[in-house]
Amino acid sequence: MNAKAQAQALMSLSGIEALRGLLAGRFEAPSISHTLGFRLVEVDKGYALFEGDPSDRILNPLGIVHGGFALTLLDSCTGCAAHTTLPAGVGYTSVETKGNFVRAIQADTGTLRAEGRVVAQGRTIITAEGKITDANGKLYAHGTSTILVLRPDKTESKA
Amino acid sequence: MNAKAQAQALMSLSGIEALRGLLAGRFEAPSISHTLGFRLVEVDKGYALFEGDPSDRILNPLGIVHGGFALTLLDSCTGCAAHTTLPAGVGYTSVETKGNFVRAIQADTGTLRAEGRVVAQGRTIITAEGKITDANGKLYAHGTSTILVLRPDKTESKA
Amino acid sequence: MNAKAQAQALMSLSGIEALRGLLAGRFEAPSISHTLGFRLVEVDKGYALFEGDPSDRILNPLGIVHGGFALTLLDSCTGCAAHTTLPAGVGYTSVETKGNFVRAIQADTGTLRAEGRVVAQGRTIITAEGKITDANGKLYAHGTSTILVLRPDKTESKA
Amino acid sequence: MNAKAQAQALMSLSGIEALRGLLAGRFEAPSISHTLGFRLVEVDKGYALFEGDPSDRILNPLGIVHGGFALTLLDSCTGCAAHTTLPAGVGYTSVETKGNFVRAIQADTGTLRAEGRVVAQGRTIITAEGKITDANGKLYAHGTSTILVLRPDKTESKA
Repeated sequence: MNAKAQAQALMSLSGIEALRGLLAGRFEAPSISHTLGFRLVEVDKGYALFEGDPSDRILNPLGIVHGGFALTLLDSCTGCAAHTTLPAGVGYTSVETKGNFVRAIQADTGTLRAEGRVVAQGRTIITAEGKITDANGKLYAHGTSTILVLRPDKTESKA
Repeated sequence: MNAKAQAQALMSLSGIEALRGLLAGRFEAPSISHTLGFRLVEVDKGYALFEGDPSDRILNPLGIVHGGFALTLLDSCTGCAAHTTLPAGVGYTSVETKGNFVRAIQADTGTLRAEGRVVAQGRTIITAEGKITDANGKLYAHGTSTILVLRPDKTESKA
Repeated sequence: MNAKAQAQALMSLSGIEALRGLLAGRFEAPSISHTLGFRLVEVDKGYALFEGDPSDRILNPLGIVHGGFALTLLDSCTGCAAHTTLPAGVGYTSVETKGNFVRAIQADTGTLRAEGRVVAQGRTIITAEGKITDANGKLYAHGTSTILVLRPDKTESKA
Repeated sequence: MNAKAQAQALMSLSGIEALRGLLAGRFEAPSISHTLGFRLVEVDKGYALFEGDPSDRILNPLGIVHGGFALTLLDSCTGCAAHTTLPAGVGYTSVETKGNFVRAIQADTGTLRAEGRVVAQGRTIITAEGKITDANGKLYAHGTSTILVLRPDKTESKA
């Protein structure tokens, strides 16, 4: 299935079915997850859990894991948490994501958990928060995203 | 030069000298830049320019470039813009980064520019803003970072 | 004109006409502006300038002007900058506002300028940035807002 | 006690003692709380609860409570939550505050609760989150603040 076909297939499902399809391997994991080293692990209504593996492939010039890794995990877990609340045929896009870096991530920090939870679910705007912790529950980063719900617009589709 | 030795060498220089050393190839580009596809292109006092290449290696499940790519570029250009203002021996760390996604980035969008500029330079906190544009100046994302300046603390170093 | 009638009258105008009506005194200044001490001073396409007067009526427990004053000014100038771009009958609401506090505001700091500028104008989402400076151009706070455009939805209005 | 004397007295106490002194009326409530209509109600380690009363004195031009009210409450509850964790003689300042507006606040919405909780407590940076809800627990706004801890610097105090 090419990227376009997969996107259409995913959009034909409710958010939680689409994400469960990804979890079950019925859809291909997105390329970013191989490139950076993270994966979806669990979803529920309003909730998404990712795991990420820091490595020496994602370091900044000072030899510490680049802040972009945590931001990517936060953006993923908040966006997918929002997605779990949407019916089939309704899309979404992250409008903004903000992350606080609480503790440096090292190449050998070990697997991190990124949990996203919906905070407020409006018809047009969903907000979600994310937290990145290690196996002992120590917090490394946290943040929020604002997600825009994209409903098919009958008025526009006629134009 | 291993990562630790390089970090020490970079810290022994002023920020702008360290970044010019990276530009000139006297230091190794950080691994994240190879992994995600971006590079430092220009620095000046309070300013840093990166270029990034969207590709099919950094896509989300819907076949669009993952928001983490823009966030990583924003985090890099704002952090390095702040770094250019610091003297030798003074470190920094990003405390938080926030990005707004204005336009979807596609695998074939072409090279993007990420420009970071210092907005406010305090003794302890520096703020910087970043903008990501394409070759035609179209805006794809923008954001800000809050950067903590890490001055060697004589009191603490005795402890 | 009561609050409801004024809101309807403002919405019947384009954003820039509505704001110019407020500037010209054809509409009543909102009560918050009396309460906190600030006022709209200038508008243009994608731009809004407010002036605010720090005072001893808005202090925090330590005797410094409360951060909420700067946040209110940022929220106003970014929201109104966005409003200037909207046609008659189209509303908006701020989805999120973020401000960085760069320098403490004192009761006797003198009149501050809060300038809002649209950064990205989408059909559904507008982003704007704001800066608060004193008479000498010294920066006190800066921030951004994400604004949701509220278009009358013919499909929904039938429901 | 004038503002300067009160600030010094507050700083001579631990954060939680200072805030309990405000609660008990041993210190004057800050002027902003009278001006906007909110008050500290409860503090605990890493926690602060405010109550705020929407009114027709804080409306925007459309007759809705100005977003600055929610931002002020968020800034207060997050900052005070951070303050509760600090020992005597150690100050703090909010570096940035971000709020999402989830539901419009009306003049007659009734008393709102603004709860701040520390998320991460570092030596130099504290992050805290805030939530604004009504008597039924409905969420109106939420946000985060980044707080800089100001420790008396022996090196500097000699200068």
